[in-house]
Amino acid sequence: MALVVQKYGGSSVADAEGVKRVARRIAATRRAGHDVVVVVSAMGDTTDDLIDLAKKVTPLPPARELDMLLTSGERISMAVLAMAIHNLGLEARSFTGSQAGVITDSAHGRARIIDVAPGRIRTALDSGAIAIVAGFQGVSQDTKDITTLGRGGSDTTAVALAAALKADVCEIYTDVDGVYTADPRIVPTARKIDRISSEEMLEMAANGAKILMLRCVEYARNYDLPIHVRSSFSQHEGTWVTDGPVPAISTPQSSQEATVEQPIISGVAHDRSEAKITVVGVPDTPGTAAQIFEAVAAAEVNIDMIVQNVSAAATARTDVSFTLPKAEGETAVAALERVKAAIGFERLEYDDQIGKLSLVGVGMRSHPGVSATFFKALGERRINMEMISTSEIRISVVTRAEELDDAVRAVHTAFQLDGESEATVYGGTGR
Amino acid sequence: MALVVQKYGGSSVADAEGVKRVARRIAATRRAGHDVVVVVSAMGDTTDDLIDLAKKVTPLPPARELDMLLTSGERISMAVLAMAIHNLGLEARSFTGSQAGVITDSAHGRARIIDVAPGRIRTALDSGAIAIVAGFQGVSQDTKDITTLGRGGSDTTAVALAAALKADVCEIYTDVDGVYTADPRIVPTARKIDRISSEEMLEMAANGAKILMLRCVEYARNYDLPIHVRSSFSQHEGTWVTDGPVPAISTPQSSQEATVEQPIISGVAHDRSEAKITVVGVPDTPGTAAQIFEAVAAAEVNIDMIVQNVSAAATARTDVSFTLPKAEGETAVAALERVKAAIGFERLEYDDQIGKLSLVGVGMRSHPGVSATFFKALGERRINMEMISTSEIRISVVTRAEELDDAVRAVHTAFQLDGESEATVYGGTGR
Repeated sequence: MALVVQKYGGSSVADAEGVKRVARRIAATRRAGHDVVVVVSAMGDTTDDLIDLAKKVTPLPPARELDMLLTSGERISMAVLAMAIHNLGLEARSFTGSQAGVITDSAHGRARIIDVAPGRIRTALDSGAIAIVAGFQGVSQDTKDITTLGRGGSDTTAVALAAALKADVCEIYTDVDGVYTADPRIVPTARKIDRISSEEMLEMAANGAKILMLRCVEYARNYDLPIHVRSSFSQHEGTWVTDGPVPAISTPQSSQEATVEQPIISGVAHDRSEAKITVVGVPDTPGTAAQIFEAVAAAEVNIDMIVQNVSAAATARTDVSFTLPKAEGETAVAALERVKAAIGFERLEYDDQIGKLSLVGVGMRSHPGVSATFFKALGERRINMEMISTSEIRISVVTRAEELDDAVRAVHTAFQLDGESEATVYGGTGR
Repeated sequence: MALVVQKYGGSSVADAEGVKRVARRIAATRRAGHDVVVVVSAMGDTTDDLIDLAKKVTPLPPARELDMLLTSGERISMAVLAMAIHNLGLEARSFTGSQAGVITDSAHGRARIIDVAPGRIRTALDSGAIAIVAGFQGVSQDTKDITTLGRGGSDTTAVALAAALKADVCEIYTDVDGVYTADPRIVPTARKIDRISSEEMLEMAANGAKILMLRCVEYARNYDLPIHVRSSFSQHEGTWVTDGPVPAISTPQSSQEATVEQPIISGVAHDRSEAKITVVGVPDTPGTAAQIFEAVAAAEVNIDMIVQNVSAAATARTDVSFTLPKAEGETAVAALERVKAAIGFERLEYDDQIGKLSLVGVGMRSHPGVSATFFKALGERRINMEMISTSEIRISVVTRAEELDDAVRAVHTAFQLDGESEATVYGGTGR
C-alpha cells in the first residue's frame, strides 16, 4: 500500500462527465489499496470566466480580491469531485488550500509556499477517506489572506503536499501521455519519454517544455520525490521524472518496469517567448558589461542567454546581446536607455522574432560527439545560429522565429528520436 | 458617524451592472462618514447553477460537500463587489464567513450561528476599509468545516454581525421597497409599512411574509438591533423594524422621521406552504391527543395550528386537525399510520389545498372589535374558515387555497389598509 498524490488539471475536469471520469480513476486507485490525495484545478474555462467577470467591474482588480475570486474556481471543482467519488461509494472530503495547510508568503497572484502543514489531510487519510485539495491556492502566513500561486500553481501544490506527506509518488495528470522528445505539434513523430532525470526535466522546463513548471520540478528534486506525468484521458503509462528507481506501485493503470539504460539524449525543447536585445557599440573596457546587466537586473528583468562579440580592434567597441522574456522587453529597453549616456553605448536593437531550441540529455557528458551532430544538423538545413549557450547536459541555440520548427525537426531526426507512429494530443492545458 | 451593516441579496447583485450599482450605494454611505460592513449573497442564479452542477454528478450530494460548493457563490460576489468599490477609490476587503468569525454548529445546510468573533472585520474598519462579508456561510466550531445557514441565511449573517459589532442599524436591501401591509402581487393597493415592532414582524414572518426570515427577526430582537428593510433599486425610505426610536442616521438615502402613532393593524400575511392533516375518529380519552402529537414530534415534523372538535357524545370519538409544512406531510402521515392501532383512531385525511391568512397588529390588544371586523369581512365574502388560531397580536384562519387571495383582499380592505396607488415590485428574491 502506497500513498499516492494525484493532480488533475482543468482540462481533465472540464465538465461533469470529466469529473465523473476522474472520480472513477481515483476510486480505482483507492480500491487498489492506496491512500489517495487529489489536487484539482478549476474546471475548464472557469478561471478565464472569473477574470472576465472581474474586468467587467474594474480594469485593475486589486490582487487580494482577485485571489479571493479565482480561488472559488477550485472550490467548485473539488466539492463536485468529492461528490462524484461519494457517488461511487467511497468517502471523500474536500479541503481548501488553507484547510490543507498550504502556507505561503503574501505575494498575491504569485505566492510562494513557505510551509505545508497537512494535519487535516493526514486525519482524513487515517479515517479511510480520500482527500481532495484545491490546487493553486494557499493562505498567507502573516495576514491570513487567501493567496494564489501563479502559473503552474496546482502542480506545485501537488508536489509540495506529496513532499510534506512523504508520498510514494506524485502523479501529474494532463492531456498528453507524458513528456515527449519534442512538442508533438511540431514533430508528429515525437516519442513519449518513459523516464527522465530531474536534472534533464529541469533543463527541459527551463527551456520551453510546458508540461511541467520549473518550480514544481525543483521542489520534487529537493525532496527526492518521483513524479509520474501521464494522461487522464488514457490508461497509458506516462513519463517518470525521478533520479532513483521507478517506484513499484501497483495502481490499476500502472505497472512500469524500470528502464535499464539511460539514453544519451532525452529530448528537444523549444521556446518562442523570448526576445533579443543587442547593445551596439559598447566601449570595450573592464566593468562595462557589468554596468549593462546591473541596470537590467535593477529593473527586475530576468535575462537568459548572453553573447559578447569579439571587440573590433580599430574602434575598441563591441556588441553585447542577451535574450529575455518578451513580456519584459519594454522594461529592459527603458532601463538601458536611462543609462545610455553613463555607459556610452551607441544604440539598442530589439528583436522579438527569435526562437530558441535546446537539446537536453545527461548522456552529453560522456559523449563528446553530440555538439558536432547538433551543429551539422542545423548547418545542413542552412539554419543560422545567432547565439549559442551550453550547460553540461544542454545545448541551446537562438534562430530566426520562422526557422524554429524546421530546426526542431532537424535536430530531433539527427539524434534518432523519431518514433514509428504519430503522437496523440488530446486538448488544451490546465493550470 | 455610525456603524452601518448592509445586506444585499442575490437579485441586487445579479450581474456586473448590479454589482456596480450596489458599490456606488456602499461608497456613498462610506463617504457620508459611516463605517460600513456589507453582507452579500451569491450573484443572481449562481446557487441554482451550482446545485444543477452537483446533480449532474450525483443524485444525493453529501451535505458537507454541498456546503463547500455553494459557498463559492458568495466568494465570487464578495470579491467582485470589493473590486467594484476599489474602482470607486475606496478601500474594501472581502472576508469569508470563516474569516469574519461566523462560528456555527455542524448541521450542514441548516447550521445555526453559535458565536460571532468579528476581530478581522473590526481591524478592517479601524484601518478605514469597508468590510465585505460572505453571507449564508460559517465555519463549524467542532470540525472547522465550512457550513451554510440555510434559507434566509444571508439576512441572519447580517443581523448576527451587526449585533456582534454593536452596529447602529442593519439595512436589509431587497427588491421591494420594504414590508407591505399585504403581498402587493395579491393586493395591488397594499401600502409600505414605515415602521413595525419586532413582535409584529415576528408574527408576519412566522405566518408567511417572506421578506424577512423568522430567525433573523428573532436575532435582531434579542440584541435590540434596528433593522431597515429597503430596496436596492430605489432611493426610497423602507420599513424600520424596531421597538425603540428610529435611529437618526444620516445616510445619503435615509432621513426618516420617527413615526408618532402606532397603527392598530400592521398588515396581512398569507401562507400557501402548509397542509392539513385530520385524524378522524380518535377515542376521546385523556392522553390520546398527546400520543398523536408525540408521534408527529418524534418524526421531527413541525406543526402549526391545532383544532380538536367537540366530541360526539354518542360515540365518545372526536376528530383532531393540525397544519404542518407540505414538505413534511408524507413523513407525518407515515408516522401516524405506524401508531394507528396503538391509538385506535379510524383514519387520516390529508389536505394540501389550504391557505392561511393572518392579521397582525399590536393594537389588537387594546381594540376588542378587531376579531369581529375580521370575521365579518370574511363572512360577507362567504369564505369558510376551517381553523382559527389567535395570539395576543394575531388572528389566523385556514381557508380553501383558491379562496385565499380573495380573503386577503377582503381583510386588507376591511381594516382600511389600502393605499392610494399601486405598489412597486422589482423582481425576484435573494437568499
